[in-house]
Amino acid sequence: MAYNVAQKLIASRLVVGEMIPGSDIGLHIDQTLTQDATGTLVMLELEALGLARAHTEVSVQYIDHNLLQADSKNAEDHDFLRSACRRFGLWYSKAGNGVSHPTHMQRFGIPGKTMVGSDSHTPAAGSLGMLAIGVGGTEVALAIAGEPLYLKMPEIWGVRLTGKLPPWTSAKDVILEMLRRHGVHGGLNRIIEYHGPGLTTLTAMDRHVIANMGAELGATSTVFPADDQVRAFLRSEQREGDFTELLADTDATYDVTEEIDLSAIEPLIALPGSPGNVVPVREVAGRPVGQVVIGSSANPGLRDFAIAAAITRGRQSHPGLSFDVNPSSRQILQDLTKMGATFDLISAGARLHQSGCMGCIGMGQAPANGSNSLRTMPRNFPGRSGTKEDSVYLCSPETAAAAALTGTITDPRDLTELFDLAYPGLELPAVSSVNLEMLEKPLPPEEAADVKLIKGENISSLPVFGPLADRIEAPVALVVGDDISTDEILPAGARVLPYRSNIPKLAEFTFDQIDETYPARAAQTRDTSGHIVIAGSNYGQGSSREHAAITPRFLGLRAVIAVSFARIHWQNLANFGVLALEFTKPADHDRIQQGDVLLLTDTHDALVAGTEILVSNETRDEVYPVRHGLSTRQVDMLLAGGLIPWLRENRTRATGDPREVR
Amino acid sequence: MAYNVAQKLIASRLVVGEMIPGSDIGLHIDQTLTQDATGTLVMLELEALGLARAHTEVSVQYIDHNLLQADSKNAEDHDFLRSACRRFGLWYSKAGNGVSHPTHMQRFGIPGKTMVGSDSHTPAAGSLGMLAIGVGGTEVALAIAGEPLYLKMPEIWGVRLTGKLPPWTSAKDVILEMLRRHGVHGGLNRIIEYHGPGLTTLTAMDRHVIANMGAELGATSTVFPADDQVRAFLRSEQREGDFTELLADTDATYDVTEEIDLSAIEPLIALPGSPGNVVPVREVAGRPVGQVVIGSSANPGLRDFAIAAAITRGRQSHPGLSFDVNPSSRQILQDLTKMGATFDLISAGARLHQSGCMGCIGMGQAPANGSNSLRTMPRNFPGRSGTKEDSVYLCSPETAAAAALTGTITDPRDLTELFDLAYPGLELPAVSSVNLEMLEKPLPPEEAADVKLIKGENISSLPVFGPLADRIEAPVALVVGDDISTDEILPAGARVLPYRSNIPKLAEFTFDQIDETYPARAAQTRDTSGHIVIAGSNYGQGSSREHAAITPRFLGLRAVIAVSFARIHWQNLANFGVLALEFTKPADHDRIQQGDVLLLTDTHDALVAGTEILVSNETRDEVYPVRHGLSTRQVDMLLAGGLIPWLRENRTRATGDPREVR
Repeated sequence: MAYNVAQKLIASRLVVGEMIPGSDIGLHIDQTLTQDATGTLVMLELEALGLARAHTEVSVQYIDHNLLQADSKNAEDHDFLRSACRRFGLWYSKAGNGVSHPTHMQRFGIPGKTMVGSDSHTPAAGSLGMLAIGVGGTEVALAIAGEPLYLKMPEIWGVRLTGKLPPWTSAKDVILEMLRRHGVHGGLNRIIEYHGPGLTTLTAMDRHVIANMGAELGATSTVFPADDQVRAFLRSEQREGDFTELLADTDATYDVTEEIDLSAIEPLIALPGSPGNVVPVREVAGRPVGQVVIGSSANPGLRDFAIAAAITRGRQSHPGLSFDVNPSSRQILQDLTKMGATFDLISAGARLHQSGCMGCIGMGQAPANGSNSLRTMPRNFPGRSGTKEDSVYLCSPETAAAAALTGTITDPRDLTELFDLAYPGLELPAVSSVNLEMLEKPLPPEEAADVKLIKGENISSLPVFGPLADRIEAPVALVVGDDISTDEILPAGARVLPYRSNIPKLAEFTFDQIDETYPARAAQTRDTSGHIVIAGSNYGQGSSREHAAITPRFLGLRAVIAVSFARIHWQNLANFGVLALEFTKPADHDRIQQGDVLLLTDTHDALVAGTEILVSNETRDEVYPVRHGLSTRQVDMLLAGGLIPWLRENRTRATGDPREVR
Repeated sequence: MAYNVAQKLIASRLVVGEMIPGSDIGLHIDQTLTQDATGTLVMLELEALGLARAHTEVSVQYIDHNLLQADSKNAEDHDFLRSACRRFGLWYSKAGNGVSHPTHMQRFGIPGKTMVGSDSHTPAAGSLGMLAIGVGGTEVALAIAGEPLYLKMPEIWGVRLTGKLPPWTSAKDVILEMLRRHGVHGGLNRIIEYHGPGLTTLTAMDRHVIANMGAELGATSTVFPADDQVRAFLRSEQREGDFTELLADTDATYDVTEEIDLSAIEPLIALPGSPGNVVPVREVAGRPVGQVVIGSSANPGLRDFAIAAAITRGRQSHPGLSFDVNPSSRQILQDLTKMGATFDLISAGARLHQSGCMGCIGMGQAPANGSNSLRTMPRNFPGRSGTKEDSVYLCSPETAAAAALTGTITDPRDLTELFDLAYPGLELPAVSSVNLEMLEKPLPPEEAADVKLIKGENISSLPVFGPLADRIEAPVALVVGDDISTDEILPAGARVLPYRSNIPKLAEFTFDQIDETYPARAAQTRDTSGHIVIAGSNYGQGSSREHAAITPRFLGLRAVIAVSFARIHWQNLANFGVLALEFTKPADHDRIQQGDVLLLTDTHDALVAGTEILVSNETRDEVYPVRHGLSTRQVDMLLAGGLIPWLRENRTRATGDPREVR
């Protein structure tokens, strides 16, 4: 049978199930990636599992999110993570080495491998012909422990590229075009596979940009073939030996098909509030801009900074505007410096920040309220920048650099007339400044066994939650609408991120953006019947942070009833023992109000049988049918109180000792 | 009569009084400097004064402290400051342009000029033969309004330098030697003037290092002659036309004298807690180091970064350590990049931060609790780093770079043996990368008049305080010991700095490091009799922030009775209507306890007469004689409720309109 690239990747690692879209499958996982904002929980989970040593080929812990160090907490998290890497046999990428996604691609990415990462942009590695999936931290912990990843077999969405991008457009405009066409729900339960003749013009790093923001379409992952562009990339990284060709069979087919003529792409921009609000730059040209930020995993490549440098070279950023540059990695900053682009950016007035995610998750560079900020980043959910009334636009480095010069949103094609500037050609080095010194190797097992975890005062143990009750009678603590992101459920930003290893404290920020009274109200339900949250469609889109499941659960959340869920958050809810249910009739969402008391009875039987559940609204004397899409495995987990207690129970049954994970 | 440099400077600008140490004098001020953490209040004060336009030759507002932008507040402060500069005719130095002191020296410093700055390290400009004094923001506002600066004529302390610094030592070791000899009280009420044959070997930027940390000795200022080294500096800054020779007369004398043989200097280090805890590096060699930070106004020069780059070139910072580099200005980062040192630092594992003060005032890079951090910064008061249980050492770039390589405190002279490394010679560019594009010129008056101040939601107006009561009967809310710094009275750091323009919110952090219960307890006294603070010697050392006077006053502080005061804070207390009194018998400090009720009667008459005041301890039935060193002008101010109400009263009497400031 003819396979596409995604099918080849899945078939090669399939340990459970069959490749039928919608059916449950299990995949063997070769590599894992964690970052510091989600990694501390992963390490606490490895500790809770009693893991002896990582079973994966490569597992890397990156320090890239919490770099501001406003107080001792970030530095203590870093020390903890380093000790855990030494203990469990993981690689440790020091603060300053760079953002996980481009760094992993440069140093560890290998065509044909599978990877899970506790970061929703993990699919960026699909640029090299890997199958890389963003998941909650617990699932990364299990992958490190050698367990398969369970998911529903997605549809494969073939996007055929033809033509070649015109000057002043780049890969970011391609993924913005996908978002313009399909919005943030477009990729749900799909793997996007790019193919076709247009591919030859896109470098591996261009593909990274496109694969990275497949997450914004809601896609399970994005894959590209491992072709000559991938070989060239690995050669420039001095790793050509890691190259394996991986191409779709010539007669491969796709479950869904699409075509993009690259030559018809124009500069695009996502308006504030959602990566799905995409319009041509020209439509909003002239709006004043207070800040421009270049960087993040969505435009991480040397060329993304180099093009901004080339555009601003010898010119000056606008006086009333802050021009911020977040290099994505030490290696890229080295190359940028070598080729003179760092000098050009500084001369043009750039504030050059340390390598890392920084402003992308609101760790610094928050704009003024109401002031327009243009960013090359992947997300602009309300408040994600750290500013409550923010106004963040997403665009290409070309569009960002144009605004830096003019102080207004500007179609970069207009620079030719404004500054007599032809689209700059770039000469990038053929070989990158490979430098492995900020990557600490796993310790040999005999040394690792003696390493003690270093826990600062801010690092608490994982809370233990009980099994799911058969009868749930609980008030609705919150009713929210469509497309609520995990940034809105549990914010990031400089104010909140330092508490990522401290669930009781972190819980105080739950739903902070939506309703500040939620944490106190919810906490009152914690020791009694708990509470329920009602949501619209695509609930829990965005970041993979499992904290967005854990902190509401910590505050007493027992069930979320939504029109539909985003995949990672849906899985995270199950992993932490929260019942995720979907309305059979979406309109029922509007019939429920905060404070209503809902009753669910005989949930255990209904879950196991997979039958419809009837939710009774005791306050309004109404009944709503709901259903669940949980696998047998997930139901078992829920009944046990979540993934970790379930796994420990299984292990105990199998070996008599819960600490014997594999 | 033969004058030294300090006397020449004072004589040339003396508008009130005589140059007799201890007597009140008034000086005409040519230039002012404000930074963003103190400048927002200065601008609010200019607004309160109704100023039409700055009267100074040059007034520059720098954005260098609050650069993290964890939320919207920093960016909104910057917008406010820019609008105030446009309104009042000031220069505006954008975020990213650099730390005020080196940037001012490079772009605006002129031998023979006087300057006040709302930053205690303002005396750094003394490196060019200026008389530059750190004061509270209100006095900067008055200087901008054309008023003289009033102070007590200091003693002039002549420090004669001979010899030449040995390899592996630099200017930082000279000022650390001064601190080793004299501690943090050594310079109180003195201007330090360096002279002698050793001077010729110290560049203007070396002198900046020494003048900058004269603040740590408690000195009013530090001056150097304007000699050939200053001429060479101005030439390299493409401003040789601004050079005027200013030398001491050959037979000049000093009130106090001292000698330092530079050739006998060895690498020194200040132990945690105070810049006065200085010992030879060798004495503490071998202690583990978790962080090294290079930067700040105390080691701001190109050579300070270049020497660290030369030492770490081709090597790697220790794995368990964070190596942080804070470039001091855009210009220096440009030069550093041009000469390849930026590349070397990045390659050696440095986290390269945006240009600014950053870690020096705890805006980022806070270390882990209890972990040793070596910094080239000027201060290590407890908690200033942003970490409660911090352990910060102060040293030269040479000593810092040595620790970055070894992971332990290391005498840099040992690098020769450890790494086969001779002390690197540096080739610095003869001409700096002058770039004025991030400095916005004052608007022409006709345009400026129409500018509206842009006030974000976090910018509150100045609180109004009433006149000093004649009878004060109030409880002692806090008793503290010696050398309490303004960092301890009102902390800086990422948690607190964003509220610098919001006094009611800021007040909640008052004495936070010492007693978290103070703000709530103090606030209860606010609307009644107020409260009193009892302190030891050198109360209010360190930073010039007038917030350390305003927020306790806002919470009801009426009087501080101390063994002695640091100059700037003492003046700030008077400026905001708080009575600063000194114990006649220092031992009485120990007789008073928190909660005691103290009674002061007939204070108005006693203040005017200058007589001793008797403080009655109603709780213990004891009496303590105290005195004040206030000038007639300060007494008038106090009776009026502070400097701004007093000045407005004066103006109203003189012109009938309080808004007619000059």
